[in-house]
Amino acid sequence: MPQEPDRSPDPFGWIEEQRERRSRAGLVRTLRPRPADSPLLDLAGNDYLGLARHPVTVAAAREAVHRWGTGATGSRLVTGSTELHAELEAELADFCGFEAALVFSSGYTANLAAVTALTGRDALVVSDAANHASLIDGCRLARARTAVVPHADPGAVGRALDGFDGRALAVTDAVFSVDGDAAPLPGLAAVCRAHGAALLVDDAHGLGVLGDGGRGAPYAAGLSGAPDVVATVTLSKSLGSQGGAVLGPAGVIDHLVNTARSFVFDTGLAPAAAGAALAALRLLRAEPGRAARVREAAGRLYGRLTAAGLEATRPDAAVVSVRAPSPEAAVRWAADCRAAGLAVGCFRPPSVPDGVSRLRLTARADLSVTELDAAAATVARTAPAV
Amino acid sequence: MPQEPDRSPDPFGWIEEQRERRSRAGLVRTLRPRPADSPLLDLAGNDYLGLARHPVTVAAAREAVHRWGTGATGSRLVTGSTELHAELEAELADFCGFEAALVFSSGYTANLAAVTALTGRDALVVSDAANHASLIDGCRLARARTAVVPHADPGAVGRALDGFDGRALAVTDAVFSVDGDAAPLPGLAAVCRAHGAALLVDDAHGLGVLGDGGRGAPYAAGLSGAPDVVATVTLSKSLGSQGGAVLGPAGVIDHLVNTARSFVFDTGLAPAAAGAALAALRLLRAEPGRAARVREAAGRLYGRLTAAGLEATRPDAAVVSVRAPSPEAAVRWAADCRAAGLAVGCFRPPSVPDGVSRLRLTARADLSVTELDAAAATVARTAPAV
Repeated sequence: MPQEPDRSPDPFGWIEEQRERRSRAGLVRTLRPRPADSPLLDLAGNDYLGLARHPVTVAAAREAVHRWGTGATGSRLVTGSTELHAELEAELADFCGFEAALVFSSGYTANLAAVTALTGRDALVVSDAANHASLIDGCRLARARTAVVPHADPGAVGRALDGFDGRALAVTDAVFSVDGDAAPLPGLAAVCRAHGAALLVDDAHGLGVLGDGGRGAPYAAGLSGAPDVVATVTLSKSLGSQGGAVLGPAGVIDHLVNTARSFVFDTGLAPAAAGAALAALRLLRAEPGRAARVREAAGRLYGRLTAAGLEATRPDAAVVSVRAPSPEAAVRWAADCRAAGLAVGCFRPPSVPDGVSRLRLTARADLSVTELDAAAATVARTAPAV
Repeated sequence: MPQEPDRSPDPFGWIEEQRERRSRAGLVRTLRPRPADSPLLDLAGNDYLGLARHPVTVAAAREAVHRWGTGATGSRLVTGSTELHAELEAELADFCGFEAALVFSSGYTANLAAVTALTGRDALVVSDAANHASLIDGCRLARARTAVVPHADPGAVGRALDGFDGRALAVTDAVFSVDGDAAPLPGLAAVCRAHGAALLVDDAHGLGVLGDGGRGAPYAAGLSGAPDVVATVTLSKSLGSQGGAVLGPAGVIDHLVNTARSFVFDTGLAPAAAGAALAALRLLRAEPGRAARVREAAGRLYGRLTAAGLEATRPDAAVVSVRAPSPEAAVRWAADCRAAGLAVGCFRPPSVPDGVSRLRLTARADLSVTELDAAAATVARTAPAV
């Protein structure tokens, strides 16, 4: 006889119920591991500059493994900081125009670190409604008071800051990951300054794409190096590697080293990833035209898609998103593209802040006009009837 | 005239005040990037099996970069899942005795995922007072009711669960990272089962060290593969690479794929890290004696340190910790060891749950008896006078 007959024997029984609910709503996600040499044309990944398989970054990653080993072996505060990390941090800060940089094992943990270390329980965070999940999770983890404000609206940020006289931080994506639209950074910075608030900009989708030679959105807005602006970037998109970084005043970076839990309590980024990101950064410096090329590619894609009558977002960076009538239609549409040789992203709830399912296409600097036009034609041809 | 004369012109002014407070308390942390070929004997890192620079793992990482590129290029749900990730997940689950596994870009994000996805706002989490920061952050992020219970005390876990009839999860490190002591897993599992609660075990410091051939603490306790037990591991310690993983029933892993934000909204682990971890796992299978060797090394270190009159913790795995009289003394002690050619960890508040500063020494399977004895002699010789 069981001791507690009213208890379920399976403490994970609720997981099966949730799975069935997801299934009925058409929101099941499954992993689809890809082979090393996929025949698909990839407009789904975030390798905006085409550097993840570039011979220069590949050689640098291999050299870093040879020289430094396969892992960092500990927290950055113990054995996990190598001279390679320091070199990457110095060059990244210099390139983007900030005083200092700190590299993390992922962009997600970089955002957690920035939001939590720059706020605290008594602080006010003002967060754009379309911000990336990692910024939202940073707000939750900080346990700060968080005001979620309408998308891309400096006036709303100002109203949220009005009358608050404690520590305040406004937080925004520079380029929003789902629709690819840019934040009004100059307006946001002005509002923050008028209120004595700091500004945190997540430039995950701007680095390598926006600003002079790909120096990013804060640089383009004249905000890099400002004493009241902090940026985060990823090493896994334009730089073709893995990891993230926080960029800002040296005092802020030192503060993160001392207090950011997702930095202190995480193993350092693997040498291969640091080496590849550094090589990508140098390649971008040597070939600044890559940033313009990816923007042109996104513009061409958008032009072709709208010419074909699709409802696409005008890209401010490398991402073009196309609305789908339903989650199920989006999944079918993406599958039809795939059957036609094209990989596209399929974004459904809960990964989209407004609940609208979309195809998400990413331009790459190394795609030819022929490839871009063929991709747009495939998307148009497979579009669901409205 | 400034518009708001009562506002500080520098929204980060408080950071400088905090820095001064840390400085006065002897708690300043600075990064000390190491060269590729350090002359120091390393008892500070977590490369327990000595695989981070092993020719087999190095070759595998280099091969993975060559074959798969320098980055995963996207979320695991979009383009970031490769057949290499799937292979690693299958072999890791098989080795540790679980039904399925899911690989993350860090152990920190794996723990966030496991705690948040297995709980929720109405859940109760019962968390050991000495748990790792990443588990604590998982509890905070989940916004669940969290009961922090005395260290390594199944009875206290039972009392915290008494009378709660909702979704409950007990969370514990298998080997506590600061003192290296093991959790009473069989007792915890029994208490959880009697209460219909699930058990989450962070085996970051157990994988590769404990259990038959290094299969980990849940395996050693007969808990791996149980329907109500989930484990997390890191790829960055015994496996010499980077990343983390969650191991558990297939339904739980599928649930994480669908709902864990630190999985869904993060770029997949870089191929080099996945390749290195897979090679390390295979090496551990082929040479199961490595796990016993690191435990013997830790035991020898402990014996020498206590014979020299130092207050060290008896190691249940690879970590030996030695108490220091103050944070300042710990820093000086570690510096004196370093000057004598030995790298040791120096753990101070806020990285130690009980506020006691320590040297933290980690044994490695590839250290000789001569090296271990010399290391213990150095620690003893440089010990602060009490």
